[in-house]
Amino acid sequence: MVTKESNTDVLIIGAGPAGHMAGTWFARMGINARIIDKRSEKLFIGQADGLQSRTVEVFQSFGFGDRAIKEANHMLELCFWEPNEKGNIVRSSRIPDSCIGISRFQQYVVHQKRVEMWMRDSMEKWSKGQVKIDRPVQALELDIDESEKSEYPVTVEVEHLSDDQGTVNQYGSKVANGLFRSFEGDGNERKGGEKEIIHAKYVIGCDGAHSWVRKAIDLNMEGESTDYVWGVMDGTPITDFPDIRNRCAIHSADSGSIMIIPREHGMVRLYIQLAQTPRDPGTKTEDEKNAANGNGERKGSIDRSKITPEVIMESAQKIFAPYEFDMIDVKWYTAYQIGQRVATDFSKNDRVFIAGDACHTHSPKAGQGMNVSMMDTFNLAWKIGHVLQGVADPSLLKTYTQERRKVAQDLINFDHKLSRMFSSKPGDGVDLSEFQKYFQKGNEFASGTTVDYCPSLIVKKPSGEYKSPLATNIPVGARLDTAIVQTQSDTKPVHLADVMPSDGRWRLVFFPGDIVKKNLYEKLTDISSKLISKNAFIKKYTPASCRLDSIIDLVMVHASDRKDLDWLEVPEAFRPCDHKKRMDYWKVYSDSPSYHVPSGKIYEKFGIEPSVGAIVVLRPDGYVSAVEELSTNGLKEIESLFANFMLTPKQSWASNGGFLDTAKDEEEWYGVSSFGHPVFAK
Amino acid sequence: MVTKESNTDVLIIGAGPAGHMAGTWFARMGINARIIDKRSEKLFIGQADGLQSRTVEVFQSFGFGDRAIKEANHMLELCFWEPNEKGNIVRSSRIPDSCIGISRFQQYVVHQKRVEMWMRDSMEKWSKGQVKIDRPVQALELDIDESEKSEYPVTVEVEHLSDDQGTVNQYGSKVANGLFRSFEGDGNERKGGEKEIIHAKYVIGCDGAHSWVRKAIDLNMEGESTDYVWGVMDGTPITDFPDIRNRCAIHSADSGSIMIIPREHGMVRLYIQLAQTPRDPGTKTEDEKNAANGNGERKGSIDRSKITPEVIMESAQKIFAPYEFDMIDVKWYTAYQIGQRVATDFSKNDRVFIAGDACHTHSPKAGQGMNVSMMDTFNLAWKIGHVLQGVADPSLLKTYTQERRKVAQDLINFDHKLSRMFSSKPGDGVDLSEFQKYFQKGNEFASGTTVDYCPSLIVKKPSGEYKSPLATNIPVGARLDTAIVQTQSDTKPVHLADVMPSDGRWRLVFFPGDIVKKNLYEKLTDISSKLISKNAFIKKYTPASCRLDSIIDLVMVHASDRKDLDWLEVPEAFRPCDHKKRMDYWKVYSDSPSYHVPSGKIYEKFGIEPSVGAIVVLRPDGYVSAVEELSTNGLKEIESLFANFMLTPKQSWASNGGFLDTAKDEEEWYGVSSFGHPVFAK
Repeated sequence: MVTKESNTDVLIIGAGPAGHMAGTWFARMGINARIIDKRSEKLFIGQADGLQSRTVEVFQSFGFGDRAIKEANHMLELCFWEPNEKGNIVRSSRIPDSCIGISRFQQYVVHQKRVEMWMRDSMEKWSKGQVKIDRPVQALELDIDESEKSEYPVTVEVEHLSDDQGTVNQYGSKVANGLFRSFEGDGNERKGGEKEIIHAKYVIGCDGAHSWVRKAIDLNMEGESTDYVWGVMDGTPITDFPDIRNRCAIHSADSGSIMIIPREHGMVRLYIQLAQTPRDPGTKTEDEKNAANGNGERKGSIDRSKITPEVIMESAQKIFAPYEFDMIDVKWYTAYQIGQRVATDFSKNDRVFIAGDACHTHSPKAGQGMNVSMMDTFNLAWKIGHVLQGVADPSLLKTYTQERRKVAQDLINFDHKLSRMFSSKPGDGVDLSEFQKYFQKGNEFASGTTVDYCPSLIVKKPSGEYKSPLATNIPVGARLDTAIVQTQSDTKPVHLADVMPSDGRWRLVFFPGDIVKKNLYEKLTDISSKLISKNAFIKKYTPASCRLDSIIDLVMVHASDRKDLDWLEVPEAFRPCDHKKRMDYWKVYSDSPSYHVPSGKIYEKFGIEPSVGAIVVLRPDGYVSAVEELSTNGLKEIESLFANFMLTPKQSWASNGGFLDTAKDEEEWYGVSSFGHPVFAK
Repeated sequence: MVTKESNTDVLIIGAGPAGHMAGTWFARMGINARIIDKRSEKLFIGQADGLQSRTVEVFQSFGFGDRAIKEANHMLELCFWEPNEKGNIVRSSRIPDSCIGISRFQQYVVHQKRVEMWMRDSMEKWSKGQVKIDRPVQALELDIDESEKSEYPVTVEVEHLSDDQGTVNQYGSKVANGLFRSFEGDGNERKGGEKEIIHAKYVIGCDGAHSWVRKAIDLNMEGESTDYVWGVMDGTPITDFPDIRNRCAIHSADSGSIMIIPREHGMVRLYIQLAQTPRDPGTKTEDEKNAANGNGERKGSIDRSKITPEVIMESAQKIFAPYEFDMIDVKWYTAYQIGQRVATDFSKNDRVFIAGDACHTHSPKAGQGMNVSMMDTFNLAWKIGHVLQGVADPSLLKTYTQERRKVAQDLINFDHKLSRMFSSKPGDGVDLSEFQKYFQKGNEFASGTTVDYCPSLIVKKPSGEYKSPLATNIPVGARLDTAIVQTQSDTKPVHLADVMPSDGRWRLVFFPGDIVKKNLYEKLTDISSKLISKNAFIKKYTPASCRLDSIIDLVMVHASDRKDLDWLEVPEAFRPCDHKKRMDYWKVYSDSPSYHVPSGKIYEKFGIEPSVGAIVVLRPDGYVSAVEELSTNGLKEIESLFANFMLTPKQSWASNGGFLDTAKDEEEWYGVSSFGHPVFAK
């Protein structure tokens, strides 16, 4: 008995970090999207806590990076402890926990629920409440109309559960834990709740390690797990261990290993190798076993019901000896077996996608899960948005699996090696100095900043090269790093990344060099006139009712002293006026020191020669699409790149193509003011 | 017919910036306070827009400095324009608008209503909604029981107005303006609304230039005004004037002067000298004239009803010539005559106080009004709070007038000279190079960071000196500047000021020097044991039920490399445990570089010799009370200083004297997490 039918452009199934990130993008781009989750919110306890540098860069690009910086604990030092000749643990070395110079942000630790809240606030703000989460709602059936005749080719039948049905049952202790989260919503039986048929153009499954969507589209996970069992516990430490406020990797002589993760509000998370683990030979039902955890291990191997905070604490105290260790105000605990698995494909027909834990699971110790999951949908959602807006051809969607499956595979390989080294006994299969080296190297990978997408429709790698000779430190396919530049019009020092927020636009970033020199100034003036000429390709891709920077934005960073360039000398394309003649004063920057802040030396950082210059093509997600010559030839190359996938607009999709109306400013404050000046809003 | 009586510890009359700041302090300290304002909120348009460095330092100390940085326009450059030989205006020079190195913050411009909103959010957060604003409520009568026999010696009769009665009427144009704000709430007649008798221990009048409170306690304003008339207008500029996004001081040859203030959201404020001003020989009633404005000019001298945006724009266009200038989306305008006045006293019986425009008025061009007003109550409210808590003797309250009247007088003198120089015609009474020099010098004063309170109960200046030889760059009586230090326990780089938030506590800031050296380490260990000994003066002033840092907090910044000091070597007073044995890891800092941020070199900045050290005594408002020797003798001096005004507590006034309960963390997030670790909360 179906009582309701509805349409949505995008249906997101699962409201964890990956689902939230997808919703954040869609809200920002003005895309019609809906999120459902089978759990009642009140009882779902989030377990992830690590935020990597690249993730915070992305948060910043949406305007809420400051919330991470303000609310999270900053995890800055990593200490290695190992047994001395007496068998007591001693500090063997300490290193920065985040690689120096790799990002303007480091590594942060905060409760997953806060992270989701920042994204929910952003969704609410930008979509004015349109993109929201319905829960508890369970998906029952999914069908794809492969004929593609329907405007909404994906049909999902769902059932609205009662709060009780959406509630997670937990084992044992009164303390919240992640040991057993079976609940009615996990079954596929009909519950008698209200049914709804949702017709969607696209579906994204962000529904975790035991993904219902993955099963519905017949994708499998490949991988393996080990015998090592680890416990996890959050609480306030009472100890004389001196490095308790730093991340520590402790190998004891005979009692196993510990990882310390210092958290917000004086809390600490411990990952503790369990010496004695109650084993379960397999007495549970398949359903129970499947539902047991989200950490990537195989089913039915440890008896989770017997793991208590006391069991975990006993192992911890042995490892910490001779230091005293106790934990009060325990907030949450769980246990997991190490395993690494990845899905064979990330999409079906480019209509249904999976993301996050639904396509890759691994150990939690490198703090990657929540981050890689969010980066999956950060990669996917703008592409779906572009196709829905009519800006891009659907072939763009193929780049999702191309780009993200490699990242998942790299992660699995990294985690496989690291977690086995961490679990091994010193001298017994692991050389601790090799472990430290691998860990240090792994931190670069773990930061998320080194992800480098393969050549595709939208990534034009220099032939046989990773970087163009025009910008020797800008890896094509990777995210563009940032540095402080000075605003030409008002001298404000800003991070270049902050003037290029995640708002769904492509960007041409011009580095015209030392433009007070005549030859370079003439080059730029020539380019400027081409950019705004009648036949300019930017005009071709921009609806006539919109401001010219609505699809492809222009930004310029010159290498001359700001004071040597008068505002009226700035070529016209870079100081456009809107239909009310209001000028845009925030497209031109200088690589020179401002009054209170030293120069970010961005030309040097990016390896761009000020006497030559370059043009960088940036995707809406901040990854480098191409680096081209500063010339009209370079412009032609860019035109060809866009011709690969961009469509001439059939209609005006942007209802608001200009400056924000100042009358609305109070409402629009959140995103607008993040960077101190108006930004494009749909 | 009185229908209601109520008690409040503090009644604040007037909900402008000064009233909000008082409320912010009281909320943060857990003091029972109430704010009333005679205007309906919806129609009161705030006119101030400038935030000076010191003001943002104070906002940061309450945990919302980031909102100013994020939302406001950063005003960084000041350009001087003057006529060339042809009579056209040309840029003669440009300088940083905020003095370099004087503060970590610069100068910001944002709508007054946003500033009030940040404070209201903070009040709401810390007082859980207890400190709030009632409006429209008009004060009618004020009586002080001079016998001081009553627990609530001040009685204020008020009337609750209807929204209509609290609504401001405006002249002329449909555009919001500040020309005439007479409304029913300005009269003293009975309106028939509900009456209330409020019994208060203290009353603060923050009710503007025409302060009702000031009149009720018979204080007068002294000063003068000039004939120069200036118009003010906010809107979006349409112009080819190249410096429109910078602060500009323009002197034209014959058409008068302009000040440009670039604002948030692409807006600009102009201060425009009006060439033709409609004069009013005095046809209005006294009431109308008195009510006419809040900018410090005298009554009845210009005919405000004839000033329109068109009149102001006409003057502007003449001054801007040969540049074109127009303004669209005009949001607000007003006109004022320059005048400077200051009240003869700031208090009556130390029971009723006045603050802000109620005690000083001046021209708005230096962006001082809102700032000095907030700094008045920032100085006053914690003192009242301390007296109410039983922490301090009421004689402490005398320091309010002592300290703030001098600041007001300095401001009046500064503004008097500057505004006359600005209004004069080039060559005709003003030398423009002298004007530029005075302006530049004035920026230091205007930043608010150089305020230097006189010797008093709570400011112990070195005899005949401004600074102690122990800390040659720490002016006693001024606010303690800040620099980045490294957290000993977790390497986090933090501004020293950020670990000493405005929470109502006094602080002893220990600079023990290079403590890995034996003599200094022993000195500090000795001091540590004295600080926590049975007879320690800190214990004397702290209720037994409270954590020992509840009244006087300890902070230590050593000059050794962080890695050379093991956590367990930190003297005990600086790593205290609470009743649950939870250790405080956030009292010890190192003046050494952290992994990602260079050293702030705080010893060098403060002029403290690492082989000698010093102890700095800080007031709850961050001003330096004394600098003492790093020795038990120095501790004795500090003990004597506190003996001047501090009281042994009669009862436990702090209901929560420990770590924040982690169960409450989600609720308490705002203030707590500003600095990444728990802070003291009452």
